[in-house]
Amino acid sequence: MIPRIPLPKDFLAVGYNSGVRRYRPDLGLILSRRPCAAAGAFTRNSLKAAPVVYCAAMLPSNSVRAVVVNSGQANAATGSEGAADNLVLVSKTAEALGVLPNEVLVASTGVIGVRMHLDKLTPALPIAAKGMTDLVNSFALSIMTTDLVPKCSHRDVKLSTGKIRLVGAAKGSGMIHPNMGTMLGFIMTDAVVDAAWLDAAVKEIVDETFNMISVDGETSTNDCVLVLANGASEAKPDGEKDFELIKKGLREVMTDLAISIARDGEGASKLITVKVKGAPNLAIAREASRMITTSPLIKSAIHGEDPNWGRILARLGQAGVEAQCFEKLRVELQGVRVFDKGKPLAFDRQAAREKLHSDQVLIEIDLGSGSFVATAWGCDLTKRYVEINTEYS
Amino acid sequence: MIPRIPLPKDFLAVGYNSGVRRYRPDLGLILSRRPCAAAGAFTRNSLKAAPVVYCAAMLPSNSVRAVVVNSGQANAATGSEGAADNLVLVSKTAEALGVLPNEVLVASTGVIGVRMHLDKLTPALPIAAKGMTDLVNSFALSIMTTDLVPKCSHRDVKLSTGKIRLVGAAKGSGMIHPNMGTMLGFIMTDAVVDAAWLDAAVKEIVDETFNMISVDGETSTNDCVLVLANGASEAKPDGEKDFELIKKGLREVMTDLAISIARDGEGASKLITVKVKGAPNLAIAREASRMITTSPLIKSAIHGEDPNWGRILARLGQAGVEAQCFEKLRVELQGVRVFDKGKPLAFDRQAAREKLHSDQVLIEIDLGSGSFVATAWGCDLTKRYVEINTEYS
Repeated sequence: MIPRIPLPKDFLAVGYNSGVRRYRPDLGLILSRRPCAAAGAFTRNSLKAAPVVYCAAMLPSNSVRAVVVNSGQANAATGSEGAADNLVLVSKTAEALGVLPNEVLVASTGVIGVRMHLDKLTPALPIAAKGMTDLVNSFALSIMTTDLVPKCSHRDVKLSTGKIRLVGAAKGSGMIHPNMGTMLGFIMTDAVVDAAWLDAAVKEIVDETFNMISVDGETSTNDCVLVLANGASEAKPDGEKDFELIKKGLREVMTDLAISIARDGEGASKLITVKVKGAPNLAIAREASRMITTSPLIKSAIHGEDPNWGRILARLGQAGVEAQCFEKLRVELQGVRVFDKGKPLAFDRQAAREKLHSDQVLIEIDLGSGSFVATAWGCDLTKRYVEINTEYS
Repeated sequence: MIPRIPLPKDFLAVGYNSGVRRYRPDLGLILSRRPCAAAGAFTRNSLKAAPVVYCAAMLPSNSVRAVVVNSGQANAATGSEGAADNLVLVSKTAEALGVLPNEVLVASTGVIGVRMHLDKLTPALPIAAKGMTDLVNSFALSIMTTDLVPKCSHRDVKLSTGKIRLVGAAKGSGMIHPNMGTMLGFIMTDAVVDAAWLDAAVKEIVDETFNMISVDGETSTNDCVLVLANGASEAKPDGEKDFELIKKGLREVMTDLAISIARDGEGASKLITVKVKGAPNLAIAREASRMITTSPLIKSAIHGEDPNWGRILARLGQAGVEAQCFEKLRVELQGVRVFDKGKPLAFDRQAAREKLHSDQVLIEIDLGSGSFVATAWGCDLTKRYVEINTEYS
């Protein structure tokens, strides 16, 4: 179990079992005692779930009070009926929490093409609302689907004007290849910021964190990251430095959550971190690092603890790394240099295997052709991934 | 075993075990008694193997006499030494076959980053040359790596001026996501055509065949399709209709070979065919159909005989099918209609499962938004794929 994690000031949350799923909480609520500045990032999949369409239209906003999340049905590919269901869930949540419907955000996760069980969710809302606490824990459980562990992160940040707190929860395990937002992520803070600032910060940081993970190259219809700042700390940032500190906290929380999703990839036994440096531009740095984390051949080799660097080079070529970069290329696996300046190096294969026998594998690539860097996270490919996804719907 | 397949007139071929691999032929030779018009298509991976760089520079050409292929080492990421090894193999092959070095094409397949075993290949060349026959069979065996079956196809085509024959052999099972050429494919014909015509025809047909298959989304460093036409039929095409007949034969042979590669995908138990129609343009038709065949979630569901159409819709969204297309979308799995005009249909789940219990699965998608069509081929994702690739190098 995760330790008890208190929410930032004036936030409440809960996870509750409405009966949609059999044994686990399936309904999550977040409430702020004050209006929040809120911003979000959403999937770039053109088939957007009803809750994604709804939130994307509402945000950024300076008057958000609550979030409702259901796990079990994605409410995607459900047409106009799904959009109507979404509005019912929003208005019933507003009623149960004593806020206005246009102050409520919503997210869904689960099977695509199935309508939400409003018959179970609606009566559960007032009961769940009564159970709200100042901890994130039960909420983090309620958003899980094939996740094996709940995913939380928090930071306390000292600004020049006082202390603020950030607490995040996320879910995600399969259908993970975010392109803009990702899976579901919720970050609450009592920082005093407005929606426009928050919106810009979220977009920048999501590109460096959630958009740099991949489990299986599948971009979901429901990817969504929501950040709520209610200002309850009353620590109004004084100058650029304070804003940078808030961004740093936000970046750390998002990085933690992103990594925890990659590590909990369906069937995964190893977290793979790929660091690319020496790239001629940021796009190549990001594309090269993501190409490695999305390669089934590399993911299988890492699973087998096989130092198969040839597959890494092939994948860099597929990513569009220019031919002349390979002359300067350096590749290290868990600190073992296997390729340098265009040539394979002799290395102790058995020792390399032993280093790969770890639940965290680091692949470092220096393209030697510039100053841009990027980091991507993924996981190994195991038989368990196939097992999980052969029978799901 | 494949039946005996005679080559077109004035072609000879052989597969021989040079000792690089333990039990299987690993050296293949093709020889034409007359100069051939030759054209090729090659990988778009920027890390190109030495033989790919060599052939791409030589083609199209009107004076090719021979092809040498080694399986075991890819001769990719081997630097200037690999390029030198390639030239040695070419010149020793020319010597053994009594042709000029600049009349010899070359292809390699196997592990990346390992140099060719010239010590074994070179002495084997004259012995292999003596064993050449007018059948394609042993050559087709010699180019296999993780392939379970040899892949051949042939057509006899009646032109207005006489009969021509086309015979093809291909290999490929993993690292299959061609982007231009694909794996290794060799097509011989006695048609009377020049290199410029052949070059245009090959590029057009490769885009419809080899570039529409995927096993694992990995674009190899060695993908290469070579087509040799030696004119020995002496049936000079008379008019556009004869040229179209030759193209039709070439398209049929390439389609056969492409499908046989998808069907023999590493670990695969089912061939998946995806037909998209009603697309607003050709790019969307091709991207949408390929997105389905490259989806690990759909591939896993098909393996489990699970009619999970939600994953198909999500993937179409990831492919960039526009949101309004979903209003007109129709999806059929093995002839069972599961989605129509923006809505899920009630269907007999058990009956659908039973239809999916087949070694060939057809997914038909009508985007209802235009007249463009495309077909892509792939295979299911099984635990065996992971097993094969956890331990290879």
